[in-house]
Amino acid sequence: MTYCCAVKLNAGLVFASDSRTHAGVDNIGRFSKLHVLEQPGERVITMLSAGNLSVTQGAIEHLHRAVRQGAVMNWTNVPSMADVAMLLGQAMREVRERDEPYLAKSGIDASASFLLGGQIQGERPRLFLVYSEGNAIEATAETPFLQIGEIKYGKPILDRVIRPEIGLLDATKCVLVSFDSTMRSNVSVGLPIDLQLLPINHLRADMKFHIDEQDAYWRELSDRWAVGVRRVFAELPPPQWYPDTQQ
Amino acid sequence: MTYCCAVKLNAGLVFASDSRTHAGVDNIGRFSKLHVLEQPGERVITMLSAGNLSVTQGAIEHLHRAVRQGAVMNWTNVPSMADVAMLLGQAMREVRERDEPYLAKSGIDASASFLLGGQIQGERPRLFLVYSEGNAIEATAETPFLQIGEIKYGKPILDRVIRPEIGLLDATKCVLVSFDSTMRSNVSVGLPIDLQLLPINHLRADMKFHIDEQDAYWRELSDRWAVGVRRVFAELPPPQWYPDTQQ
Repeated sequence: MTYCCAVKLNAGLVFASDSRTHAGVDNIGRFSKLHVLEQPGERVITMLSAGNLSVTQGAIEHLHRAVRQGAVMNWTNVPSMADVAMLLGQAMREVRERDEPYLAKSGIDASASFLLGGQIQGERPRLFLVYSEGNAIEATAETPFLQIGEIKYGKPILDRVIRPEIGLLDATKCVLVSFDSTMRSNVSVGLPIDLQLLPINHLRADMKFHIDEQDAYWRELSDRWAVGVRRVFAELPPPQWYPDTQQ
Repeated sequence: MTYCCAVKLNAGLVFASDSRTHAGVDNIGRFSKLHVLEQPGERVITMLSAGNLSVTQGAIEHLHRAVRQGAVMNWTNVPSMADVAMLLGQAMREVRERDEPYLAKSGIDASASFLLGGQIQGERPRLFLVYSEGNAIEATAETPFLQIGEIKYGKPILDRVIRPEIGLLDATKCVLVSFDSTMRSNVSVGLPIDLQLLPINHLRADMKFHIDEQDAYWRELSDRWAVGVRRVFAELPPPQWYPDTQQ
């Protein structure tokens, strides 16, 4: 299973993904689900992927191939992140068209999706969810975070905390708590976490972090959150309707 | 959408369900999803239902009909809660066999499931999940709570708090927090909540509570939990890897 989450703030973008990939219980591999396309100082594009790994890798390869073949429109020259989202959607459609009939014969699900975000000089940072069908939606001020994969366990804390006004580090902290909740409730989402921060107008992909079991900050965050949540819970008043049921 | 949750403790059982039923966006009704069968002092059986309402109501009616028709085995005379789970599974299979071909013609999903718990004198309280196919699993000390419907948003707090040793009121508090998280993240799960406590050897269904928007305890719990969680979050240390990204 996969969990990916990305946040669009006034201060920039935050991306996070786990890196556990399943193909049956006896075949659990680790593949990074965080992919970066970069022209430093001009554009930075980050993609988080979920779903069929051959489809997502194939779609990204398709973006690179377009550059190699000098396509009129490719990720290095389109003027807007919305165009990049469209290119990625088209790439996914082409890969699925090529491979899906063969996958279907073996009952293999070819669906996949991406969180795609970044900034192109002249535009504000933008964030999209590119669906398996190749269409896309964009994060807004009302919905400043997007998720793909195993999204539900980790959504409540995002709903409570994420607002466009909060800072990159607060959002990062919140995203990590969201991962902690997800991993506690679904063992198939696991460390390490790939994390990337994209401050507005920074236009460089030099803030990537890899969080594994040895990461001291992760362990402190996870422990203090567990203790804190249990303390808040313990301090909540018990129901009063039936005082004689106390046992 | 539905959310139902039940907990098996050393001290007894706790049941909770929302009572919102959908059949398309313009047809949201309220039907209780908590059903009780009772022979006071001898056996108490509680069922929480999710899925196709005609199937779950039909299955429960089937249990009543068996008593009316004097079936050799019915919920009033079987010696074990495991037998009741089997009867409910059979009832659901018969209803689905009767109705599913007609529902399928209109593309209507006939799946449904139950949480079934209670106590029969001479046995400890037991709790089961009866699947749409009529088979069942039982809650154990390692897995003391079961959920059906929209289960994921509310699972993390249950994972953190529920242990067989905690009291009925602490478990009730936790279940209500679980509902609060679910309702914040999925608007189609909503108040009122039907709640029932079954203390061990109590063998009476006289602890049922109905929690609606006016319930003072619910509002206090929801508010204090929100404030407390945000406070714990605010007190967590920010990431230290990149001190110059603080903004």
